[in-house]
Amino acid sequence: MTTTTPYPPDPQAPHNELPGRIMAREMAEQPAVLRRILSQGAPAIHQVAREIAARSPRFVLLTARGTSDNAALYAKYLLEIRLGLPCGLASMSTITAYGARPDLTDVLVVTVSQSGGSPDLVASTQAAREAGAITLAVTNNPDSPLAGVSEYHVDIMAGPERALPATKTYTASLLALYLFVEGLRDSDGTAAEALPDIAEQLLDRQDEVRTLAARYRFAERMVITSRGYGYPTAKEAALKLMETSYIPALSYSGADLLHGPLAMVDNVSPVIAVVPDGKGGEALRPVLDRLRGRGADLVVIGPRQQVEQASAGFVLPTEDVAEELQPILEILPLQLLAYEVTIARGQDPDAPRALAKVTETR
Amino acid sequence: MTTTTPYPPDPQAPHNELPGRIMAREMAEQPAVLRRILSQGAPAIHQVAREIAARSPRFVLLTARGTSDNAALYAKYLLEIRLGLPCGLASMSTITAYGARPDLTDVLVVTVSQSGGSPDLVASTQAAREAGAITLAVTNNPDSPLAGVSEYHVDIMAGPERALPATKTYTASLLALYLFVEGLRDSDGTAAEALPDIAEQLLDRQDEVRTLAARYRFAERMVITSRGYGYPTAKEAALKLMETSYIPALSYSGADLLHGPLAMVDNVSPVIAVVPDGKGGEALRPVLDRLRGRGADLVVIGPRQQVEQASAGFVLPTEDVAEELQPILEILPLQLLAYEVTIARGQDPDAPRALAKVTETR
Repeated sequence: MTTTTPYPPDPQAPHNELPGRIMAREMAEQPAVLRRILSQGAPAIHQVAREIAARSPRFVLLTARGTSDNAALYAKYLLEIRLGLPCGLASMSTITAYGARPDLTDVLVVTVSQSGGSPDLVASTQAAREAGAITLAVTNNPDSPLAGVSEYHVDIMAGPERALPATKTYTASLLALYLFVEGLRDSDGTAAEALPDIAEQLLDRQDEVRTLAARYRFAERMVITSRGYGYPTAKEAALKLMETSYIPALSYSGADLLHGPLAMVDNVSPVIAVVPDGKGGEALRPVLDRLRGRGADLVVIGPRQQVEQASAGFVLPTEDVAEELQPILEILPLQLLAYEVTIARGQDPDAPRALAKVTETR
Repeated sequence: MTTTTPYPPDPQAPHNELPGRIMAREMAEQPAVLRRILSQGAPAIHQVAREIAARSPRFVLLTARGTSDNAALYAKYLLEIRLGLPCGLASMSTITAYGARPDLTDVLVVTVSQSGGSPDLVASTQAAREAGAITLAVTNNPDSPLAGVSEYHVDIMAGPERALPATKTYTASLLALYLFVEGLRDSDGTAAEALPDIAEQLLDRQDEVRTLAARYRFAERMVITSRGYGYPTAKEAALKLMETSYIPALSYSGADLLHGPLAMVDNVSPVIAVVPDGKGGEALRPVLDRLRGRGADLVVIGPRQQVEQASAGFVLPTEDVAEELQPILEILPLQLLAYEVTIARGQDPDAPRALAKVTETR
């Protein structure tokens, strides 16, 4: 059974606002949301992390859908790299459709969902708890059913999100997950304190993004690539572009791109590369060389030096930002890009054709 | 560093063969390959499975790229549903780029690679073994470096694969992985014995597929969806279509499709649904209803009743085939479709623009 909460409630209702105004407002709230999590949310997140660390989970399964799935993938990189904890992304249907009942002793199951309302996430989390897992819900709603069935809860404190393309709940989820993982290793995550100010600076550069957006106004497809910590950003940017502008945007890890889909690049598909300032960016370098060698239209979101070697780009001031924190910043110009491309194509980012805020698939 | 083995070796060399002849020949070999695995390969696979089962792994990490990654995803469903073993797909760069060294005691690491030659897979498998994992390589080359560094090896016995779009190594990997998972639960996998004959019947229906292909000759994008066991098929079909025809083909689990990308559907993107005859198909039903309700161009690969409710389709005779075995059959008409669409667009499936058979990304 699928039920949906359509938005706007009545598509015939007059729009009193400019196109994309809701999405624009929520993107602009992001620095404040990040500040709120750091100042008000961090102690509770640290406490949850401490209690879970005391139970010494051996594996982590992450469960989510859509934008939250990209946040979960970010957490997977953090957990594997910074904690050495083997992780998997759950294939939810194995539990909800096939009734699999794995033995989840010593397993931490983290379910990420901004609404906390999707029945399949609630069902799979409940099943995981019955199967012996330590369960943690990361949501924007402490009163949600998902928070209710989970043993632990982390509140991402993003405030109500009205736009259908999720923006502030994504960066809020990333920061909350970062603080949680840092808490697991008994670090207070103070490295994140510089983020709100940098986020503000990035969002102030909307004119630069508008110039970039012009290049995609008539694009029929796009390829977005990255590696390591930047890969969740590539996936989330592709999802955002598709949700708002309907351009088929394909995301690949750099290594996978070379395995086949490179055939689609050349002058046919413009490429956006998210280049982390760190090991992920280094691992991506041969892919960028190959793309340049093929004459691809390559736009880089990353450090100045990488942008200067590309067709165009957006410089991220990441000199003093640890690589694992960069995803919280990298996505901002790409959210703006999805917004600006959609406006340039004469569409309304606030009124995607088919998007429902809570999808309820059983 | 990226080095590639280009194919054909010299792009200026004359093509003596008809377009797509290499791919066509290898697709046609699949029934014989499946027979070979069942008759000659099964005992060795069963023996490997028995030895690994005796060591009681608690968690499985699957590592692969490209087509093999889709085979690995199939194994993930099998392991979770039929064995209740929690699984994850490895994010390889966490080990190769970031040097993560997780504790892999009690963890089975399965690396799937037709060539067994990618240095990053060899490196990550070696690192996993040093970290305490039980390591299993599933390859088409017992003499490969990957087989060499792994404690156990399963040979998929597909014979040399010359075409760049992998076809017979995909179905061979699926069957070998099926027999391995069945072996872990001490079953001999005889349920698979009917597959080679059915595969032959399906491949004989190329004319039907050619008719379907006409509908995508001018398509600018495609969406492929499924759920459960059919989801790896959807991903592999999308990859095959992109590798051969360069049509941007986006694959989504049905539940994810409703979360956002549905905005791209309607009359803009034709949809192919892979409908398993079983629980995965049941879970997909609300998605199909929604697509039909939106007037989407919906082609179904699945049981007759589902095909009859769609715009068009290809009927799979799956009445007597267990759902977990259907992926080995479902992909066949979709391989043929990628081939036929590419021919219809005047391109050569044997000469994709940028594909290398072994991608060596570090």
